[in-house]
Amino acid sequence: MDPDALSKAFVEHYYTTFDTNRTGLANLYQESSMLTFEGQKIQGSQNIVNKLTSLPFQQCKHSITTVDCQPSGPAGGMLVFVSGNLQLAGEQHALKFSQMFHLMPTPQGSFYVYNDIFRLNYA
Amino acid sequence: MDPDALSKAFVEHYYTTFDTNRTGLANLYQESSMLTFEGQKIQGSQNIVNKLTSLPFQQCKHSITTVDCQPSGPAGGMLVFVSGNLQLAGEQHALKFSQMFHLMPTPQGSFYVYNDIFRLNYA
Repeated sequence: MDPDALSKAFVEHYYTTFDTNRTGLANLYQESSMLTFEGQKIQGSQNIVNKLTSLPFQQCKHSITTVDCQPSGPAGGMLVFVSGNLQLAGEQHALKFSQMFHLMPTPQGSFYVYNDIFRLNYA
Repeated sequence: MDPDALSKAFVEHYYTTFDTNRTGLANLYQESSMLTFEGQKIQGSQNIVNKLTSLPFQQCKHSITTVDCQPSGPAGGMLVFVSGNLQLAGEQHALKFSQMFHLMPTPQGSFYVYNDIFRLNYA
């Protein structure tokens, strides 16, 4: 699978999981994983999912505008850079966001999220 | 130097160089460096600087809104995620942008840009 197709597939899977079964995101992180969410630093799969499930909204829908990817080095990692819109239930206007993921390969031939940085882009 | 201070220092240096001496950015990239600029993939220091110096504006001023950083793994790399505004000479409104850098250490104890992904955030 080529990197662009793989990163697009990851992004679709990630945001579909976020929007429909947020606790399921735990499978995409490991204990070494890092999330920086609007400047707040969180480490470890369970802490990250606790943060994401405690955000002050229940229903949301991510729409992706752009996905860019690059290999991150000899360890087989992949950097994925996303921009898009986040629509919260009951809100008139969508929020714009940017997010980057550093995916690292697992021994099983899959990937997990090692780095994750999320920012809203305020207008 | 702690990672947050180092990433802020890098970001200030990068955009000051971009805004005052764009060809000087060549020193921050190497032959293996990758840039994805608005979806266009470019590799190598000289090709990257050729792209950046051929952008259709001469004078610009970057203003940084946020800088986030995380270590990228055992190789000593650092991920730097930036959001900000780009003011072009003669334009009334600034453009919003997001950009990520993957900095890798050099044998001399400095860093170079291995990965660089840039996107404008259209309103």
